[in-house]
Amino acid sequence: MEPHTFAVIGGDMRQVKLASLLAKDGHQVSAFAMEQARPEGVTLAPTLNAAVADAACVVFPLPLSRECRTISTPLSDTVLTISEAFAALTPAQTVCGGRIDADTFALAADHGLTLLDYYAREELVIANAVATAEGAIQVAMDGTPTILTGTNALVLGFGRIGKVLAHRLRALGVHVTVSARKFADLAWITAYGYRGIPTDTLTEHLPGQQLVFNTIPYLILDAARLRRLDPGTTLIDLSSKPGGIDFSAAAALGLKTIWALGLPGEVAPVSAAAMIRDTIYNILSEQGNSL
Amino acid sequence: MEPHTFAVIGGDMRQVKLASLLAKDGHQVSAFAMEQARPEGVTLAPTLNAAVADAACVVFPLPLSRECRTISTPLSDTVLTISEAFAALTPAQTVCGGRIDADTFALAADHGLTLLDYYAREELVIANAVATAEGAIQVAMDGTPTILTGTNALVLGFGRIGKVLAHRLRALGVHVTVSARKFADLAWITAYGYRGIPTDTLTEHLPGQQLVFNTIPYLILDAARLRRLDPGTTLIDLSSKPGGIDFSAAAALGLKTIWALGLPGEVAPVSAAAMIRDTIYNILSEQGNSL
Amino acid sequence: MEPHTFAVIGGDMRQVKLASLLAKDGHQVSAFAMEQARPEGVTLAPTLNAAVADAACVVFPLPLSRECRTISTPLSDTVLTISEAFAALTPAQTVCGGRIDADTFALAADHGLTLLDYYAREELVIANAVATAEGAIQVAMDGTPTILTGTNALVLGFGRIGKVLAHRLRALGVHVTVSARKFADLAWITAYGYRGIPTDTLTEHLPGQQLVFNTIPYLILDAARLRRLDPGTTLIDLSSKPGGIDFSAAAALGLKTIWALGLPGEVAPVSAAAMIRDTIYNILSEQGNSL
Amino acid sequence: MEPHTFAVIGGDMRQVKLASLLAKDGHQVSAFAMEQARPEGVTLAPTLNAAVADAACVVFPLPLSRECRTISTPLSDTVLTISEAFAALTPAQTVCGGRIDADTFALAADHGLTLLDYYAREELVIANAVATAEGAIQVAMDGTPTILTGTNALVLGFGRIGKVLAHRLRALGVHVTVSARKFADLAWITAYGYRGIPTDTLTEHLPGQQLVFNTIPYLILDAARLRRLDPGTTLIDLSSKPGGIDFSAAAALGLKTIWALGLPGEVAPVSAAAMIRDTIYNILSEQGNSL
Repeated sequence: MEPHTFAVIGGDMRQVKLASLLAKDGHQVSAFAMEQARPEGVTLAPTLNAAVADAACVVFPLPLSRECRTISTPLSDTVLTISEAFAALTPAQTVCGGRIDADTFALAADHGLTLLDYYAREELVIANAVATAEGAIQVAMDGTPTILTGTNALVLGFGRIGKVLAHRLRALGVHVTVSARKFADLAWITAYGYRGIPTDTLTEHLPGQQLVFNTIPYLILDAARLRRLDPGTTLIDLSSKPGGIDFSAAAALGLKTIWALGLPGEVAPVSAAAMIRDTIYNILSEQGNSL
Repeated sequence: MEPHTFAVIGGDMRQVKLASLLAKDGHQVSAFAMEQARPEGVTLAPTLNAAVADAACVVFPLPLSRECRTISTPLSDTVLTISEAFAALTPAQTVCGGRIDADTFALAADHGLTLLDYYAREELVIANAVATAEGAIQVAMDGTPTILTGTNALVLGFGRIGKVLAHRLRALGVHVTVSARKFADLAWITAYGYRGIPTDTLTEHLPGQQLVFNTIPYLILDAARLRRLDPGTTLIDLSSKPGGIDFSAAAALGLKTIWALGLPGEVAPVSAAAMIRDTIYNILSEQGNSL
Repeated sequence: MEPHTFAVIGGDMRQVKLASLLAKDGHQVSAFAMEQARPEGVTLAPTLNAAVADAACVVFPLPLSRECRTISTPLSDTVLTISEAFAALTPAQTVCGGRIDADTFALAADHGLTLLDYYAREELVIANAVATAEGAIQVAMDGTPTILTGTNALVLGFGRIGKVLAHRLRALGVHVTVSARKFADLAWITAYGYRGIPTDTLTEHLPGQQLVFNTIPYLILDAARLRRLDPGTTLIDLSSKPGGIDFSAAAALGLKTIWALGLPGEVAPVSAAAMIRDTIYNILSEQGNSL
Repeated sequence: MEPHTFAVIGGDMRQVKLASLLAKDGHQVSAFAMEQARPEGVTLAPTLNAAVADAACVVFPLPLSRECRTISTPLSDTVLTISEAFAALTPAQTVCGGRIDADTFALAADHGLTLLDYYAREELVIANAVATAEGAIQVAMDGTPTILTGTNALVLGFGRIGKVLAHRLRALGVHVTVSARKFADLAWITAYGYRGIPTDTLTEHLPGQQLVFNTIPYLILDAARLRRLDPGTTLIDLSSKPGGIDFSAAAALGLKTIWALGLPGEVAPVSAAAMIRDTIYNILSEQGNSL
């Protein structure tokens, strides 16, 4: 791998770890706006301009921004608007970040920059799903006074997270049922040895489950369905807002619910950083860099 | 499940088993053009007209035709052109078959028939991939004087068959390497615990493999790559014609090759029939039948 | 299952859960010396005599005693000597407890009691190993900023815990190496698809491991071996005192170590209680009770 | 590995492959009494004396003898009594063979020879169980018109073969039930995620099974139990004579039975030979040879 020059700007612990991992791979790395958690082996630049001056690739965090105005910098006192940041860059640099909105893309174009969203890359979304699935198992282990072996668990949805989660749960000796709407997904579910149920028959399969993992991003477990669950069932919601569980109805029924968002960054920041690094390498190699 | 009336026409052992399975489920089934292997629990009709007269659903074989002119009837002396067959049907009947070409679809439209290709349904293609993957393992077991446990196997391609095959091989204690071109596929390969290699690095990973399974439908193992394999390697090609192996080069090198086509119908005709039955049920239920 | 009468005396949360589980199965249960954590569905008896008066089976905790003099009662202010406890019982009762020493057995014999150690039953030791292995994975997930998928892990020893732990880790996509001394164990390790290494070659296999789980109850990872590990390696010791790791040498090297003892009771008290319940049922059924 | 000198005498294809494998490892190998299938890379000696003259280790086949009088030589016209064979050897040689009876051991002692039974070594018995389990799956695939994925299979007994067979079947997506008598075995069965049933409740679990694998070496499936099986069930008996199935009762009921004996030598002679080679290496290394 040939050495490359990177500037890593803002972000949470994943971004800090990313800077360290890039340095560990032999690259020249400058960092900015993460002074509350100094990355190992990396010098912090005093200013944005100093950080990006020599960088062939500038990496903004995941997400690049939380409110579409400033760069996300939870580990810094610096307030850095997206405009200011882009003004410091040149068209010759590779600029990337995660979960970028349309306005930010337009702003980058105004500055003549080519902005790339590494979170739009399928390989990162898959790696993220793996970390989310494993994190969900960790949350289930931490949140229950029982072992997983021999329990009945229901996974709602067979997208990326559902696929990995069902695979891991079965491997741990769990009796896994997966709900899906499409016949094709049900065929895959059978292929992997899980019990598949059509989503429209979900209600009748709720009794007897000890654990329910939701990956569906709309209200699937409403009050009527929650009432069918056994009293001791634990529910773990992995779907982003608004979530798939009627949490107040669950609370009223005495069901334990855990809404686990952002698991990769929380339970495995180093792995999350390594996934972003690998994706950036893929982007650079597609641009013809011999990394 | 409410009883339904089926006519099952022509085909190989899968079609014979399909007729029996439908009868076993309580449906009224008539069969025609399979007199050399009488289906259990099903009366053979003396003529096509008698077979289809009362049928709400008429099932042609997989493939419906081998030469796009006559219905495939390997277990019968009957010669039945597609035209004749369609002339005996009415627009009120559900008509289906497998691997249907455009001309046959046009002919059905001319007769006012709605013709459905059950082999175009994703759930059947997936189920078929499962049977193919399992059949490939059977072929590997039968074709080698060694056990699979502890061997090194290479799977070329991570489509449907590659996915199931890698899963099963690893489960049998095989050290599995999978080649793929897309970063996203390589991310999935890692997620499932196999070793993933980019296809463009394939050549260097050929030495040391005891088994190579090909699922890629173009010449991937040419003479140059075959020369990199160890002398005792066994190659199993699962891709349809023209196949992915230079078979004459392999023969010249003394490598054992097996071109395994049509595995589901060959090694598991009953399961293959059950998959077609399930897919037909799905078709009918989508049409509003309460099966 | 016919109803039975139980007295559950002393112990930690496992014993509390055990009392509840027995009551949930429809048995008549009295409890004593666990007043700081009242078991669901069970009435606490005011005195030991009241608790045991009608009980066909009297269950002491795991361990029955910590210092071989008093019954272990961490959730009670009651001080109850083993002598007092046995004096309240009659030979007609089935009396059991966990990890009972020879003196206590002798004392029971003096009182004409037949005392049974449920922890001496192989099925409970195996179930405990399952809970320990799963707990070890939970500890590894909680204790590292990485996911398990794709990491290299070394399991030292292939006894009960090593067997289950290796099985679960591989299932989670970990590259598992297991060390063992016996050729027979190495044959099993190969059979299950892990990499097996003879213990006397352990030193050379330490570099490159991200996680090391020890199940061997003597000093196996001394300073010389610890020096061979990569700086970021996490070590989890599952062996009882004195443990298998030179912890001070590990600290001096900056290696992260976790000594995880008593995992079943800590991470899964309800499952640990259920295992004891099942074992007691086995004991009673062997005595001819129709449970 | 230091080169060693071996004489390989008599036997079936496993012994032939063993001679080749030893030669491939760089050892000096002479062979005798296998002239109908010449081992690759090995010179056949004209006489027993010529074969054993320079051999530090003399390897007799598995079994050494079928009738306790002559060495087993199915691939030769040579008739070689055990007495003659032993008379040609000296106490300095390491002499081994498989499944040796007490009389033969006594005869060896009379000749001053130390005779070792490699088949008495646990690691070979385990490796053999792995090959038997995999062979059983091959037999099941070959003997049924269905795929294994999604079927119900019952494994009778949880000894070495039962353990590996259940592991492999579950991995192939089979719903596995295992019967065992001991509570400890049932605890292991649960630990690995199979459904465990006490053997005394076997009768009630027979309906609904598509495949039954027997590993128990006495009549377990008598006529009464066979009558409880579904008509299409396939039974595979892996136990040595007299077997565990009432075969004539099964035939009368129209049940398909396969009595699969000697699977490792039959379906995987090269692996079977490699296992014997590894075990001989273990024997020699324990004797202080630096192999």
